Amino acid sequence: MYRDNPLRKISWADFQKLDLMEKGPFFMRGEAPYHALIAQQFDRGLLDRVCELSNRIRSIAKTRGGANFLRDLLCEKRAMLYFAQPSSRTFLSFLSACQTVGIQTASVRDKSTSSEVKGESPDDTVRTFSSYVDMIIMRHPVGGFCERIAWLLCNTSRSVPVINAGSGPDQHPTQALLDIYTLQRSFEDAGGIEGKKIAFVGDLARGRTVRSLAWLLTYYPGVKQYFIGPESLQIGEDVTQQLDKAGMDYEVAYDFEKVIPEVDAIYMTRIQDEWDVENESQAIDTSGFHFREEHLKILKKDAVLMHPLPRRAEMDVAVDADPRAKYWRQVRNGMWVRAALILMIFQRDSEIDRYYEDLTG
Amino acid sequence: MYRDNPLRKISWADFQKLDLMEKGPFFMRGEAPYHALIAQQFDRGLLDRVCELSNRIRSIAKTRGGANFLRDLLCEKRAMLYFAQPSSRTFLSFLSACQTVGIQTASVRDKSTSSEVKGESPDDTVRTFSSYVDMIIMRHPVGGFCERIAWLLCNTSRSVPVINAGSGPDQHPTQALLDIYTLQRSFEDAGGIEGKKIAFVGDLARGRTVRSLAWLLTYYPGVKQYFIGPESLQIGEDVTQQLDKAGMDYEVAYDFEKVIPEVDAIYMTRIQDEWDVENESQAIDTSGFHFREEHLKILKKDAVLMHPLPRRAEMDVAVDADPRAKYWRQVRNGMWVRAALILMIFQRDSEIDRYYEDLTG
Amino acid sequence: MYRDNPLRKISWADFQKLDLMEKGPFFMRGEAPYHALIAQQFDRGLLDRVCELSNRIRSIAKTRGGANFLRDLLCEKRAMLYFAQPSSRTFLSFLSACQTVGIQTASVRDKSTSSEVKGESPDDTVRTFSSYVDMIIMRHPVGGFCERIAWLLCNTSRSVPVINAGSGPDQHPTQALLDIYTLQRSFEDAGGIEGKKIAFVGDLARGRTVRSLAWLLTYYPGVKQYFIGPESLQIGEDVTQQLDKAGMDYEVAYDFEKVIPEVDAIYMTRIQDEWDVENESQAIDTSGFHFREEHLKILKKDAVLMHPLPRRAEMDVAVDADPRAKYWRQVRNGMWVRAALILMIFQRDSEIDRYYEDLTG
Repeated sequence: MYRDNPLRKISWADFQKLDLMEKGPFFMRGEAPYHALIAQQFDRGLLDRVCELSNRIRSIAKTRGGANFLRDLLCEKRAMLYFAQPSSRTFLSFLSACQTVGIQTASVRDKSTSSEVKGESPDDTVRTFSSYVDMIIMRHPVGGFCERIAWLLCNTSRSVPVINAGSGPDQHPTQALLDIYTLQRSFEDAGGIEGKKIAFVGDLARGRTVRSLAWLLTYYPGVKQYFIGPESLQIGEDVTQQLDKAGMDYEVAYDFEKVIPEVDAIYMTRIQDEWDVENESQAIDTSGFHFREEHLKILKKDAVLMHPLPRRAEMDVAVDADPRAKYWRQVRNGMWVRAALILMIFQRDSEIDRYYEDLTG
Repeated sequence: MYRDNPLRKISWADFQKLDLMEKGPFFMRGEAPYHALIAQQFDRGLLDRVCELSNRIRSIAKTRGGANFLRDLLCEKRAMLYFAQPSSRTFLSFLSACQTVGIQTASVRDKSTSSEVKGESPDDTVRTFSSYVDMIIMRHPVGGFCERIAWLLCNTSRSVPVINAGSGPDQHPTQALLDIYTLQRSFEDAGGIEGKKIAFVGDLARGRTVRSLAWLLTYYPGVKQYFIGPESLQIGEDVTQQLDKAGMDYEVAYDFEKVIPEVDAIYMTRIQDEWDVENESQAIDTSGFHFREEHLKILKKDAVLMHPLPRRAEMDVAVDADPRAKYWRQVRNGMWVRAALILMIFQRDSEIDRYYEDLTG
Repeated sequence: MYRDNPLRKISWADFQKLDLMEKGPFFMRGEAPYHALIAQQFDRGLLDRVCELSNRIRSIAKTRGGANFLRDLLCEKRAMLYFAQPSSRTFLSFLSACQTVGIQTASVRDKSTSSEVKGESPDDTVRTFSSYVDMIIMRHPVGGFCERIAWLLCNTSRSVPVINAGSGPDQHPTQALLDIYTLQRSFEDAGGIEGKKIAFVGDLARGRTVRSLAWLLTYYPGVKQYFIGPESLQIGEDVTQQLDKAGMDYEVAYDFEKVIPEVDAIYMTRIQDEWDVENESQAIDTSGFHFREEHLKILKKDAVLMHPLPRRAEMDVAVDADPRAKYWRQVRNGMWVRAALILMIFQRDSEIDRYYEDLTG
């Protein structure tokens, strides 16, 4: 129970008026996250800590003894995975993270089995779920609903932390964290993320992943971002304005093949036609924004290929075997990052450090 | 394996002829429940024991060490949660109770994934489920089906206990137990449940909760019950006849606002229109049976507001913050009561007492 | 990680050209199974080992201490249960087996919650699932898909073992193992399976169970198999040719009542009309292939009645109470056999032997 929770000191009406940077501190407990709801609540120090912890957890998990140590860390806690939107990928990643650190889980994925059929309000539904557990991990189609629930629970006598596993078209903060972690690991022996050239390709207008990641990259000096996609799916002005304000270098481009040899990382994305209103994606020619096997020849030899998956034609299966393809590693990285985040929320991350220092010291 | 099970000594045809009070002893193993199927199998001694155990479990669970002790109690057992009717609330409560005492679970909630599509009989389906586990917790739309299964399993070479998590319109015994526990806790410093005035409001004709609770309250001397609802949804004669027979004081009333200031507890219920045959509920004016924020002023200052949830308009959200509103606590109490019941069924409850006495002694 | 995996040394195109006996060795790691995909990969030595281990696990599980020992064996591992076809029976059996040996599980059963709706390939879907776990247990409607996945994963940098929990109409190897185990246990005091007369009855054309079991029985000298069913559902020539090649005695028969008194085991099967193209099963008179209560009188006194369940009319419920009916025991045997198989795959079976020898020595 976190009594000095800042969300207790603001009304819901006032809270909604804040912008993302102003909301961030309301989700923190001191230096650590209490809720994990938006990319904007993470600063560079936190990103470095998440990466460090993820590395340590991954390394500890390699032995039977280490895996058992991890499984004891939160074994008296229980988490609810409430996924009101289809997602096996993110669901399984969070479930695996919970199992890795020993937190027991309950899940609600199918709305038809819920009391919503009896006319219950969404607030009551989630408050009921929270009654049984110590944490809620939720995905919801309504943007901002996670924040609403975090505020609501903090203003009851039984508050629990909330992790946003994807809310509407706006935020998916743990995806952004795992992307940062993948970049950091990939550039570990190449001076880190600082100063790298990173291209985002495909549907930049509707990919919440790109929006969050573009923002987090402003913490890494010297990074230059490229936004490459069909005109109607290009990056929004809200993102470029943020980058302008942060003084970051970036380029909006349309010739993918010209950019490939120049960059250190390419982040491919899928055309997100599930957000189409009238199948408008079908009229867009996206073939110029596919990464094909022949592109491997013009790609830098230490470059990194990423994709949040699932993929369709934009990322050629023939590329998978190339060592520069990091998207399958990215999937597994998600599990380590989420385990790290959960431990930070419960303030048990120092136990990782102690075990790791014993192991390596 | 409970070999002297009394259900082995009676045919199904004879068993069905018994009334509820006669059935009760068939579900017991000595003083403790073996199956938990009907409210009528619990006497005052058992109710007090369930409340005592629930208190102790709740108190032990507060520390990490205590939580780990609880999680070891039944860690070699497995339970099947078979919910053939939608319910996230009761399902999650039982799941959490199982996790609290360390029992591993499997669940079947979606009939379409089951072998019933291959023409299997309901008896065979549940017998198959029972083959893998040490306990079945089940909700079923057919009244009496849980009893059928309990009888069937006891007459095979591999009997396991059955808990009724809601069967048809008739029984939901663990809801009644958690209601008793909530009343007992709420009146702990006010002389207990004895002598209190308790009002049931709303759909009393179709709420299985009210029927079971009204019966259990006959064990508490001096309690007066009020039944307040629209004429067509009033309490049935079967219940009032039971109360007459038990010599209990009660009143059937229609003016809710007149009763509010008189009573010590108000138990609100939802109009259960899922049992409507032809939307008949829509024609009933239930607005006089809502608890509104302004009613807080006329409510006794130590009174207790309960609701089994989910709620609709009958219980004003604005009331939630009032300390007399106990319905959210009621939700969590359900978890403790179910954990207590499971431990009693497996005869491990004395381990709770030993730990608790060490803790407090 | 099993680096010398033979599946790394063959292309998918070449692998597909192999027959079942040639494929077997590709699924092994030395003497033990690494993947468990087809009945043909098990020889007599392995069958005996699976039965021995199943017996030992069953016996160890009887005490609280033994159950806790088992639950620690694989507690640092996680398995994915991916069931793309409805099945509660096999699903629950595998889940219970995993819980018995302590392996944590995640499950995907409902295709609509998966990323397949976003246009992902089946290969990518399963590869994603495999990213989070140490083993995949899968049921899939497409014959050969499990083999495809085993090959695919072995050719990535993160291979995990795959167990086939039923693929299309062709293979269901763990069902065959549990049938062998049930026969072995039943004939333990009668000289084993060797030399027994075993009748298969019902839908022999479409039952994958019968096909696999008929093959495994060729490892038991002196066994005579009877195939009894309506002409249009009789055993296929592919099976009888295998038996001819193996030099096994068998008989294709149509008069069930004549065979009943002659045999030591009767394996009943259900008419599998889910494979009907145009309800053709309805036109077949199967009434002569039902086991009825009166048949108990002509059945040998030590004979064994089996059925893979679910059943319909072909296996009379009135027979259940007869001690020769082993089909409910068969259900539970499936759990022990699957636990044994999982331990063998992870090379932890010797820990069972050590515990068992301490226990009995």
